[in-house]
Amino acid sequence: MAILVTGGAGFLGARLVAALVDPASGAPRDARIVSIDLAPCPVDHPRVTSHVVSLPDPGLDELVTDDVRVVFHLAAVVSGQAEAEFDLGLQVNVDGTRRLLEACRHRARSPRFVFASTIAVYGGVLPPLVPDDWIVAPESSYGAGKLIAETLVVEYTRRRFVDGIVCRLPTVAIRPGRPNSAVSSFVSGIVREPLAGIDAVLPVPPDTRIWLCSPTTAVRNLVHAATVPAGALGRRPVVNLPGLSVTAAEMLDSLERLAGTEVRSRVRHEPDPRIMAIVRTWPGAFETERPLHLGFTVDADIDAVIREYMDTARQAASS
Amino acid sequence: MAILVTGGAGFLGARLVAALVDPASGAPRDARIVSIDLAPCPVDHPRVTSHVVSLPDPGLDELVTDDVRVVFHLAAVVSGQAEAEFDLGLQVNVDGTRRLLEACRHRARSPRFVFASTIAVYGGVLPPLVPDDWIVAPESSYGAGKLIAETLVVEYTRRRFVDGIVCRLPTVAIRPGRPNSAVSSFVSGIVREPLAGIDAVLPVPPDTRIWLCSPTTAVRNLVHAATVPAGALGRRPVVNLPGLSVTAAEMLDSLERLAGTEVRSRVRHEPDPRIMAIVRTWPGAFETERPLHLGFTVDADIDAVIREYMDTARQAASS
Repeated sequence: MAILVTGGAGFLGARLVAALVDPASGAPRDARIVSIDLAPCPVDHPRVTSHVVSLPDPGLDELVTDDVRVVFHLAAVVSGQAEAEFDLGLQVNVDGTRRLLEACRHRARSPRFVFASTIAVYGGVLPPLVPDDWIVAPESSYGAGKLIAETLVVEYTRRRFVDGIVCRLPTVAIRPGRPNSAVSSFVSGIVREPLAGIDAVLPVPPDTRIWLCSPTTAVRNLVHAATVPAGALGRRPVVNLPGLSVTAAEMLDSLERLAGTEVRSRVRHEPDPRIMAIVRTWPGAFETERPLHLGFTVDADIDAVIREYMDTARQAASS
Repeated sequence: MAILVTGGAGFLGARLVAALVDPASGAPRDARIVSIDLAPCPVDHPRVTSHVVSLPDPGLDELVTDDVRVVFHLAAVVSGQAEAEFDLGLQVNVDGTRRLLEACRHRARSPRFVFASTIAVYGGVLPPLVPDDWIVAPESSYGAGKLIAETLVVEYTRRRFVDGIVCRLPTVAIRPGRPNSAVSSFVSGIVREPLAGIDAVLPVPPDTRIWLCSPTTAVRNLVHAATVPAGALGRRPVVNLPGLSVTAAEMLDSLERLAGTEVRSRVRHEPDPRIMAIVRTWPGAFETERPLHLGFTVDADIDAVIREYMDTARQAASS
């Protein structure tokens, strides 16, 4: 059997591939893991093969073989880039997803299709705690493209072309490396940069509420999504993955508790209207009863999230 | 200037074209009306030109000229056919809409884009009176395709590529002619057929609630949609057009009042699980405060709707 991971070279995708070949993850021990991305998957393992192919490319079709049991569809043009490059956003986030669904549809057995979506499908005036059945009304090209892709996944599932589940991920932080073109990039930046001795900018008001989960929790929940029985999802296989609801100020307080006043002082507040315009349309907290009941998990608190990053960064520095 | 009507040969499209060349409608008196459909528009008028072209066809692009001020996008694969011919449904209802939006995007001036959508974008467990901001969760390929197209229209509007408005039409009845492959075809059939002396079948329980408007009201509301200022729509240019909420039994009672017991007795109840499965996911009544405030109108009552049809049928028979 095979498991496909699109975006397998990305931040989350590479961690997911690494988890899938880790016996502790509970993933099948004999599965081939096929990474599809614009770059090779960095995980070096005999069960991992890596294909460098863009998403709406016809070459995709032959990678979806009859023995594919699970597709993790993570590849996407992220929020900032989708806003700047409208056509590319639709090509990858919409046409790419449709191409992948079509390839799955024509297999002997419908694979489980885990689609990584986003809370950016929400917009408009939102209540402080967003109910599970709140209307989606994206106010970004990224959110619109993801909502269209979600609608395709749900419809292909209803038609039994795939066995789909849509997982709307919280903002995943803290991410190592450089800032990316996601509008939410600052959420990692305001912790990562000061810890590395670099000044950082908070571009939104300190009381901006962020719906967040750690990379470890995100990967664990994606792996879990592959195993949730379709029957448990009811008529709507869409799940807002659980998260922590924290303000930017609470993140900085946590940073100060764990790393000291000097580190925190490297973050200055400098409002950026372009980023605020998009982030303010994202929900700050969701009801979590249904996803927790379905077995998805949540980080303990913001200190645990930041501590996880500090440990990872320390290991990376010493290796 | 020009006004485009896709589906201009269809039931509603042809009536819309006829209204647009009628000085009483308030439409501009000098506008060229361009019909786009798989068949020629039946309206014979010097200002009407008719193009026979399928919707995702590249030939569409050159029909969207710089002087197009309004696009009425009515052409669609209807519910029964979209369920039976999945690929065709997506090609026309999704790809066709996107092609049309793209053609409009690259014009010198963004046209008003009136998109005829449907209450079939709703599904799941619905309250008796559906609020304006209720979640959409289609449970048919038709509804899914229309929701994707809606999302495109709203996003193209947010990006200012078009000046869009999404009008979710109630079931439009009573339609003359033959049954079509819309799942809602019976709503017209249970009135039209017995009036013509033909036996008809009610395929859903008599207490099934239908959200309905007459052809005259539907056309009047579409014409009005072209004039509603974008500013009045707020951040979400989507409108559930107002309708009457009537049960199938109430329709038959009205038929009996207007045409007698014998006519009514030609309708027999014969449940059809395929039709019930789709119709039961459609809402029976909506809040109408916002659309009425925006100037959209509603029929007086079900007797008025059936009487309108009887008058039209009588005129057609005597001409």
